[in-house]
Amino acid sequence: MKTVIIGGIAAGLSAASQIKRQEPEAEVVVLEKSGDVSYAACGMPYNLYFKEKPVEKLYAMPLDTIRKERGVDYRLHHEVTRIDASGKSVEVTDLESGKSYRESYDFLVYATGNKANRLDYPGFDSEDVFYFRTLEDTRRAKSFLYGKPPAKVLLIGAGYTNLEVADVLTNMKLKPVIVEKAAMILPAFCEEVRAKVMEKAAEKGIELLTGVDIEEKAGRTVRTSAGTFEADMVVVAAGARPNTALFAAAGGELGVAGAVKVDRFLRTNLDGVFSGGDCAEHYVRQLGRNSYFPLGPAANKQGRVIGQNICNPEKMTEFWGVDQTAVFKFFDYTVATTGLSELQMQTLGKNVVKVTVDAPTRGEFPGGGTMRIVLFCEKGSGLVLGCQMVGEDVVAKRLDVLATAIYKGMTVFEVAELDLSYSPPYAPVWDPVLVAANVAVKKV
Amino acid sequence: MKTVIIGGIAAGLSAASQIKRQEPEAEVVVLEKSGDVSYAACGMPYNLYFKEKPVEKLYAMPLDTIRKERGVDYRLHHEVTRIDASGKSVEVTDLESGKSYRESYDFLVYATGNKANRLDYPGFDSEDVFYFRTLEDTRRAKSFLYGKPPAKVLLIGAGYTNLEVADVLTNMKLKPVIVEKAAMILPAFCEEVRAKVMEKAAEKGIELLTGVDIEEKAGRTVRTSAGTFEADMVVVAAGARPNTALFAAAGGELGVAGAVKVDRFLRTNLDGVFSGGDCAEHYVRQLGRNSYFPLGPAANKQGRVIGQNICNPEKMTEFWGVDQTAVFKFFDYTVATTGLSELQMQTLGKNVVKVTVDAPTRGEFPGGGTMRIVLFCEKGSGLVLGCQMVGEDVVAKRLDVLATAIYKGMTVFEVAELDLSYSPPYAPVWDPVLVAANVAVKKV
Repeated sequence: MKTVIIGGIAAGLSAASQIKRQEPEAEVVVLEKSGDVSYAACGMPYNLYFKEKPVEKLYAMPLDTIRKERGVDYRLHHEVTRIDASGKSVEVTDLESGKSYRESYDFLVYATGNKANRLDYPGFDSEDVFYFRTLEDTRRAKSFLYGKPPAKVLLIGAGYTNLEVADVLTNMKLKPVIVEKAAMILPAFCEEVRAKVMEKAAEKGIELLTGVDIEEKAGRTVRTSAGTFEADMVVVAAGARPNTALFAAAGGELGVAGAVKVDRFLRTNLDGVFSGGDCAEHYVRQLGRNSYFPLGPAANKQGRVIGQNICNPEKMTEFWGVDQTAVFKFFDYTVATTGLSELQMQTLGKNVVKVTVDAPTRGEFPGGGTMRIVLFCEKGSGLVLGCQMVGEDVVAKRLDVLATAIYKGMTVFEVAELDLSYSPPYAPVWDPVLVAANVAVKKV
Repeated sequence: MKTVIIGGIAAGLSAASQIKRQEPEAEVVVLEKSGDVSYAACGMPYNLYFKEKPVEKLYAMPLDTIRKERGVDYRLHHEVTRIDASGKSVEVTDLESGKSYRESYDFLVYATGNKANRLDYPGFDSEDVFYFRTLEDTRRAKSFLYGKPPAKVLLIGAGYTNLEVADVLTNMKLKPVIVEKAAMILPAFCEEVRAKVMEKAAEKGIELLTGVDIEEKAGRTVRTSAGTFEADMVVVAAGARPNTALFAAAGGELGVAGAVKVDRFLRTNLDGVFSGGDCAEHYVRQLGRNSYFPLGPAANKQGRVIGQNICNPEKMTEFWGVDQTAVFKFFDYTVATTGLSELQMQTLGKNVVKVTVDAPTRGEFPGGGTMRIVLFCEKGSGLVLGCQMVGEDVVAKRLDVLATAIYKGMTVFEVAELDLSYSPPYAPVWDPVLVAANVAVKKV
């Protein structure tokens, strides 16, 4: 049995490793266009901060380990130029030698990830404009930053990536300006969380403007609907879209958000072709359907499921899906969400009880802080629909309790009864999660 | 309606507050023997470390707030000397004036807590022997510690309290010696966790001896079966037992571990008398019966349930119980457990799969560490039975995911599917919890 995998970052390497774990004799060829082996893309903004830490520290493992210990034929700088779905083969170009060849497969895994939306306004093709999608992007940005440190940095787009980049740049004593096209930041979050993020940005001296249309860039000058900004460095993080060209050209069917359409087994419409990671759809349990939620954990989990299914075609496993859990760091704040967004609840016509609680994170012990929890549940039943948190100290791993509750369909009555850990260094006697659940119980 | 509450620390004040929230006109009298209002007893060891922080910082709230805002008639230095169950009254002595009086009640809440087991070997009645059960104990110990700092400290008993005290004393540059009567420390924990605690103690230069019988104390010299120790200060934390004398003298029935026997509504056998907190039994969900698990969260929750039940006698609420979650800090380690102990699993005849995983707590981001997870599930079904953790960084709030899983009867198959938060500052792409669950899945 031979599997060819296009793209070797998260889903691709996970699928490869899983196949080799289950069937050590199977042949697995990974064709990775870039010169970088599987890396943790979510760590890229943070790596900027550490001048001495090479971006290669983000590699999941050395190439040698992948090849020798895992037994995967992992080829860097190998670009697939065409998929022949009926002939079950791909055309490959070795970018270093320039030579092309054909590689046949029994199974193909399409794991090409996504790519940053490029700005096509005049002047945005210059050398001082950076994106943040690949390790090579990070390498370029880092070399620029530490080469001749920019006096002024303009960040276009106010999503997780640029908020993390703003955090890092501020810690490097740069004062970035962020402009966002939409009328508000962080659409997955509710106003009560967004307000805290905006406050923190203001506290840190970061100018953050929304509803800004970019017009053009001429030298150091970026003209926008909100006026002119001078910038020695521009970082664009204005969303990303699935890399589907090769797949579509081979007759592959696309789905939500233009991602590769997959069934619950992660099969595509092409015979023997699976897909996962940032190029594919992701099943969202609470919606009961596929959506597009391109984050690292889903990519890794989908890769593993693909590997299992390739090895067990008679007994395939469904990808169980995501609960839309996401988290990012913004200075001393952790900003986190799980479950449905407020907009999704509205769209679904849910009758929602929403409670907002500000609570201390620890008992009488130094190092704690305050966090805000916004808990959403269904009126009447009390079913937990979503939860968002923002604040200091331990936030992300508190959110996980709600992610667990949502996975298992728990109510706020049940959450209020949880026996959560208590000791002054870790929590007050009523953990903020319990406080929020108790407030919700009264309103259900 | 008039409620008298004996003991105003955790369960007592919670019950009082709940009654006043639900029925602002109700009369609530709290009779607290000590001179301290409700405090967070679990914070006492940590308070020692901060010379300038008065022990009164552990108060849940000022007396004035309890009286004026909550409307509770809270009386300090008032000792109940007798309960007249048939006459529904108590005899009280005002310890300051020496006067005695009778207070009648419609409902009585017995919330007297527990008391430290005293050592009755010769010489242990001296001024340099300390216990750690009340705020007054802490006040005495702290005044001693900062008055004439002891050169040598002997800690008798190696439970949570003395391990926390050892941590604090070591940070104060004292080198405590710990002696424990039992053959091993922390019986609620498995060997894989205990070993890490012992390692940490050794790393910190703390001598920790088990299987040690105390013989006598003469001046600075404590003679034991393991030899003689010199000590300027002795801290005894050798367990505690419920304060039940008053209750028993009134015809009250005792249950597990000599604690006040309560039903699921926290009623005792005496008419109109409820009990909760460290003097009472605690329902353990996984055992399906009462046990004795005297920790702060249970006391607070039981107090709240008692308050609800006093206000709603026609529609009483069961105390839902605990899952035996407990956590303490030992230097940079957090040591935590939830669910059944290994011994309880054996007693129940469970067929157990046990997996131990050591994993990093973060992605490529500074400040992380390593933690160990020991996960227990039922062979065949995969039902999560218990989980213990020890290690650095964020551990306690990771345990809470397993506490939630146990509450809800989840299997390791389900835990492996959770969509837990991921970003390099908070977790690796596969959180340690997922790693442990995935290993368990393979062995079920």
